[in-house]
Amino acid sequence: MLATLAFAGFPKPALTSDQDTMNPQIPRTALQLRSLIRRSGELEVSLAEVGVPEPAADEVLVRIEATPINPSDLGLLFGAADMSTAKVSGSAERPVVIAQVPEKAMKAMAGRLDASMPVGNEGAGVVVKAGASAAAQALLGKTVAMIGGAMYAQYRCMKADQCLRLPDDATPADGASCFVNPLTALGMVETMRREGHTALVHTAAASNLGQMLNRICIQDNVPLVNIVRKPEQAALLREQGASHVCDLSVPGFMDALTDALTATGATIAFDAIGGGKLAGQILTCMEAALSRNAKEYSRYGSTTHKQVYLYGMLDTAPTELVRNFGFSWGMGGWLLFVFLGKIGPAAAQKLRERVAAELKTTFASNYSHEVSLAGALQMQAIADYGKRATGAKYLINPNKGIAA
Amino acid sequence: MLATLAFAGFPKPALTSDQDTMNPQIPRTALQLRSLIRRSGELEVSLAEVGVPEPAADEVLVRIEATPINPSDLGLLFGAADMSTAKVSGSAERPVVIAQVPEKAMKAMAGRLDASMPVGNEGAGVVVKAGASAAAQALLGKTVAMIGGAMYAQYRCMKADQCLRLPDDATPADGASCFVNPLTALGMVETMRREGHTALVHTAAASNLGQMLNRICIQDNVPLVNIVRKPEQAALLREQGASHVCDLSVPGFMDALTDALTATGATIAFDAIGGGKLAGQILTCMEAALSRNAKEYSRYGSTTHKQVYLYGMLDTAPTELVRNFGFSWGMGGWLLFVFLGKIGPAAAQKLRERVAAELKTTFASNYSHEVSLAGALQMQAIADYGKRATGAKYLINPNKGIAA
Repeated sequence: MLATLAFAGFPKPALTSDQDTMNPQIPRTALQLRSLIRRSGELEVSLAEVGVPEPAADEVLVRIEATPINPSDLGLLFGAADMSTAKVSGSAERPVVIAQVPEKAMKAMAGRLDASMPVGNEGAGVVVKAGASAAAQALLGKTVAMIGGAMYAQYRCMKADQCLRLPDDATPADGASCFVNPLTALGMVETMRREGHTALVHTAAASNLGQMLNRICIQDNVPLVNIVRKPEQAALLREQGASHVCDLSVPGFMDALTDALTATGATIAFDAIGGGKLAGQILTCMEAALSRNAKEYSRYGSTTHKQVYLYGMLDTAPTELVRNFGFSWGMGGWLLFVFLGKIGPAAAQKLRERVAAELKTTFASNYSHEVSLAGALQMQAIADYGKRATGAKYLINPNKGIAA
Repeated sequence: MLATLAFAGFPKPALTSDQDTMNPQIPRTALQLRSLIRRSGELEVSLAEVGVPEPAADEVLVRIEATPINPSDLGLLFGAADMSTAKVSGSAERPVVIAQVPEKAMKAMAGRLDASMPVGNEGAGVVVKAGASAAAQALLGKTVAMIGGAMYAQYRCMKADQCLRLPDDATPADGASCFVNPLTALGMVETMRREGHTALVHTAAASNLGQMLNRICIQDNVPLVNIVRKPEQAALLREQGASHVCDLSVPGFMDALTDALTATGATIAFDAIGGGKLAGQILTCMEAALSRNAKEYSRYGSTTHKQVYLYGMLDTAPTELVRNFGFSWGMGGWLLFVFLGKIGPAAAQKLRERVAAELKTTFASNYSHEVSLAGALQMQAIADYGKRATGAKYLINPNKGIAA
């Protein structure tokens, strides 16, 4: 059912007068991070006091203790705001971030203007209250992982059958990132197979996601070409057993990439960067690798289909394609929930089961910082995770420092 | 069988000593246009005297009397040469065009260096000699159309079953362009249908191909958004019954395009231009049209897949995509012979039959100039058809002025 729930809905706060009486540890209201872009072009991110929802019969209430800031969260969190204009006001416990959205970017924000939006794709926590159904009751007190938005909050109500129960020895932090990155990495390998390719290319390859993909590919014996931007990132991946690492900062990058593509036969790439020339350069090098083995000239280029999927926007600049790679090519967006929808619930469930089974090995994530909801809205933190740099990975604990 | 023969092979000259005796009208050697790019970076286009081939049992020899200069021929004809450096030497009957290929473009030419290549995708003429098979003999004296390269020549040998016999009242000029443009235009509509779209966008829409597509869409009741660059092109298409014409030269183009996309629901486009911003702007406007009707905000954009195929390279500059159209999009190369291969021989044959049936109406082409092989290699002609401008369409008659 993952396919339909991903990024789908928001919890509907339901204030009930008997909550305190029934379970004195659960407050009547709790904090939820909200992002608002006003028609005036002002972004406001703040912590709202919202009603703690009452679970329906088939639902559980989860006290969220770990929820990551993924690059895929930043789009909703800050919209198209220019974060160099960001200012933080309010109190330490209730900071308010204000920033300006450039005029020309407002068109793309039209759909969300003046609507206060909860944020946070995935998270994990402990089930503190359960509906009457057996499935819900079975989860009471258990640690579960969830995907579905509105995770930057102290509490989240969720259908019991949409919670992924974690192994008994797993903490919420272990399971906080068990959907977006693991399923994205598995989804890339699955897409590669389904579209008839036998090896793949990944950019921003030293990211948490990239390291995960590298572990999957080693385990599954799938040739992987890792593209990074710094020597230390290349070293990191090589230490982790990567065979093909191409460093954009090294002269001769294009030749090195062509060599790696020739060696692996990779004709599909997943690009986290999006902007600039890299996606096109990958196609150029794929074509060069293919034409090394070509028997006769065709001015239309090789007939082998070359594909680059843009799954991220680390660089929001325009994508520039120098079309010297013939006519057998494709480029397109790639999005986890669209992919999961395509493969269907049974195939998605298989991927989830693999994640749960290898949670602390293949799919382990590393965090550089753990912060509270308020801590995520401090200038230094925003500047840090806003860079989307390798190694700067934030985990929010919305109940940090609050007695359970 | 069209799928397999398209752009496939070149005729192998076979000198036979008895040709003159058997058929005194057929010379032993004849002219064939050749394009050569030397390792030094020099392009040379000239007319070679080659042996007239002897048809095998299942082949016919065609005296070519009409062969168009399509944009798709220019790539092989001039390669990546900078035609502003072109000089014509030689005699009036045997001109030799020399031009320089820029250093940075030489890599893309690697596959064809120092190989003298015949040119010309399609053409039509009269069968002047036939092999022993019944199929070949049945075509003797008939006017046929062909596709398969090496048509810029006085004679071309071809498998009898790969010739399209034209109606008795059709001249070679009527049938000269009966593959590339007609099948490309039909292929666009067919691709639209097969990929689940119900309306389409076409750029450079006032071209011969564009006018053809407009006629097909009117006949088939398929909504078509025509994008042109000049008011007179817009007027031309409107005179021919086009309902949606967007002119890039008019202020408010993006709004007009969004309106047309909203009205038609077009989510697939075929772009002949390739370079610059237009392909991306089409995706932007498609997304804007889709979000006009969106019920709730998604920062990932609409989930409706938006597709742009680049089938030409009228602008060889880089393609620039400002990615403000979500993640449900694709861009890719589109090539007639790959498409025909995908749909298979039976479906391709259906398209061919429609072309033959509507040769003088839906699929009629207009030419501004008719030239000999030597005439095609004059400075003025090269400058003229090299512009790929609407209205400047050349037809070569390789046997012009030569008594049949």
